[in-house]
Amino acid sequence: MTNLQRVVKEIRPPDQGAMEAARRRQDSLTKPPGSLGRLEELSVQLAGIRGGERPRIRNKVIVTMAGDHGVTAQGVTLYPSEVTAQMVRNFLRGGAGVNVLARFVGARVVVADLGVAADLTGLAAEAPQTRFVIAKVRPGTADMSAGPAMSREQALNSLSAGIQVVEDELEGGIDILGVGEMGIGNTTAAAAIAAVFTRAPAAEVTGRGTGLDDTLLAHKIRVVERALAVNQPNPHDAVDVLARVGGLEIGGMAGAMLAAAAHRIPVVIDGFISGAAALVACALAPNLREYLIASHRSVEIGHGHILRHLDLEPIFNLNLRLGEGTGAALGIALAEAAARILDEMATFADAGIADAGVAGVQAAAAVAAAVEPEDLRPGVGKNGG
Amino acid sequence: MTNLQRVVKEIRPPDQGAMEAARRRQDSLTKPPGSLGRLEELSVQLAGIRGGERPRIRNKVIVTMAGDHGVTAQGVTLYPSEVTAQMVRNFLRGGAGVNVLARFVGARVVVADLGVAADLTGLAAEAPQTRFVIAKVRPGTADMSAGPAMSREQALNSLSAGIQVVEDELEGGIDILGVGEMGIGNTTAAAAIAAVFTRAPAAEVTGRGTGLDDTLLAHKIRVVERALAVNQPNPHDAVDVLARVGGLEIGGMAGAMLAAAAHRIPVVIDGFISGAAALVACALAPNLREYLIASHRSVEIGHGHILRHLDLEPIFNLNLRLGEGTGAALGIALAEAAARILDEMATFADAGIADAGVAGVQAAAAVAAAVEPEDLRPGVGKNGG
Repeated sequence: MTNLQRVVKEIRPPDQGAMEAARRRQDSLTKPPGSLGRLEELSVQLAGIRGGERPRIRNKVIVTMAGDHGVTAQGVTLYPSEVTAQMVRNFLRGGAGVNVLARFVGARVVVADLGVAADLTGLAAEAPQTRFVIAKVRPGTADMSAGPAMSREQALNSLSAGIQVVEDELEGGIDILGVGEMGIGNTTAAAAIAAVFTRAPAAEVTGRGTGLDDTLLAHKIRVVERALAVNQPNPHDAVDVLARVGGLEIGGMAGAMLAAAAHRIPVVIDGFISGAAALVACALAPNLREYLIASHRSVEIGHGHILRHLDLEPIFNLNLRLGEGTGAALGIALAEAAARILDEMATFADAGIADAGVAGVQAAAAVAAAVEPEDLRPGVGKNGG
Repeated sequence: MTNLQRVVKEIRPPDQGAMEAARRRQDSLTKPPGSLGRLEELSVQLAGIRGGERPRIRNKVIVTMAGDHGVTAQGVTLYPSEVTAQMVRNFLRGGAGVNVLARFVGARVVVADLGVAADLTGLAAEAPQTRFVIAKVRPGTADMSAGPAMSREQALNSLSAGIQVVEDELEGGIDILGVGEMGIGNTTAAAAIAAVFTRAPAAEVTGRGTGLDDTLLAHKIRVVERALAVNQPNPHDAVDVLARVGGLEIGGMAGAMLAAAAHRIPVVIDGFISGAAALVACALAPNLREYLIASHRSVEIGHGHILRHLDLEPIFNLNLRLGEGTGAALGIALAEAAARILDEMATFADAGIADAGVAGVQAAAAVAAAVEPEDLRPGVGKNGG
């Protein structure tokens, strides 16, 4: 059994008993039931994933996977491929957006080279404080507009490498995992993946990436259409999709998500590209979806299609389109806030406060009835209230 | 000159030079320009308020103002007025939602009794670790459905007390202020205030509060309509509105906002009730609006009207309706994240990365032109680039 087969098999549905216990606890806390909205829902999801009534989020990890894309030869990006390696160096030095936000939320960043088209072996020595994993499957994908981005075996290797990155981090502790990426050209690959799984036309899932103008966007759409026409990826075979029109860091992220879920760790996805990785991963293991938390709704137009396909509701909409795991970092903070509400708030009993409940409704209705003029008086059974 | 007149006079427009410098710095950071969306805009707003290119948010304060409402005699709430005092005790003991989220974001909570209908002088001794200010203007308002909630002098006193609460905290340091509240019955007062300033009918700004059913909601709308008809508050006189259909904690929050802005401190407002306080405060000092950050969009239906009237865009939508400052706490975290991005990210020059800029667009266009078939070739001037 490969490690991919193993983790897929180990992903179980969330613990319904823990979710029910968390819901009961939420309703006992000193607030009107449901008044913390999405935070309450998130806390219940976390309870189900972690398998306990009061999950605690202490060890937070963001994996940022990097890889290059042969399709950049088609002029679909404003930045050259060299920027991928330059940004990896920036991650290791702590100067990128994901570093700033990870520090802010108290998460450690693990940077992994799944397929950067440059030799990065020297970088680790430059920045020993950041964990850097070289798990290069190949130095960049081939140009998917002319043929498959990679072989099936390489796609499987990228998934396996992503699993390994997460499993190697387990001994340091992971209570929640954020996934992000860096890869010049990867919005083009993500658009192709989104088109395959959501069945949307390329024009509806292809966006401006780092800032294409209208002319270049129209060109990028044609490149995605060509990649789909040349490769004919099989929507019922996620590894085939990943191999033909995917990316090495996308496979790595999909593997990381699967590994986290196998170990009952919630996964906060970032934007469009990690969303495309989630499409691949959920196709391999449908139970994974229950482990996913969508942090934000990206500016990239294809992201909405992905979130709808996965039936995920993003926590916030900040018009982000950077990637790296920046949105995931903020999503981790909100998930932790949700867990703390569940764990730390006083109950009505603790605080010696009478909950409203049915008695509150009856008391209010009685007062209301007494003060209203006869013809407007709310009464039992009047509006079914 | 009263302290209200003083702070209103001291609120100046944000520093345009600092905002411009912050914008330039954002564009020099290692990310595609604009790719951190709302976080970039927030950082520029913070720079303008604080008057520096790289504002730092270290001292975070949430003031939670409490007051009772005579209108509860009309049966508009599920919880009795006694819960206001019980929740103040919960705040002081650290068990409420706002305490949990304030601890999480590293903010100190200041609880102020502006008008709780109970003697709370003994509470401070119970929980010496939380700052508790007794600035009681009167023990609860009168029933606004039968006459003014308070006198004009009392409304002015509540504004002044709110100013004092913030100015007394200045020596401990405040880089950002969140405002929240507790007051059984205060969604009814907030609905009346919102109706006056936004000119919306009561039915469009009156919500379910802590969870009214349809019958009780219809009754609450009639109570708001009666309060407006009985009092005829003058929409051109914010103090009159506050006195006739407002609340003591609402006046306190409005004063706190004005004081913060006078000292160039950004203000994160919470939900519906602090939004109503912002309507009062912005009517007194229109420049205040530039100092406000709307944290979330509340479930209360009137909140949307308030945010549109003030032209504020909430940062997130988590279906919250608790109040206390819980949404403000999360908003403070996002504002701090925005400031850290501006302050801590490496620039392209620091990281030795070539920015894309105009050269990137030209390079991409040249490649795209070379690879497209003749008839689809994007060219200079074709789509206006």
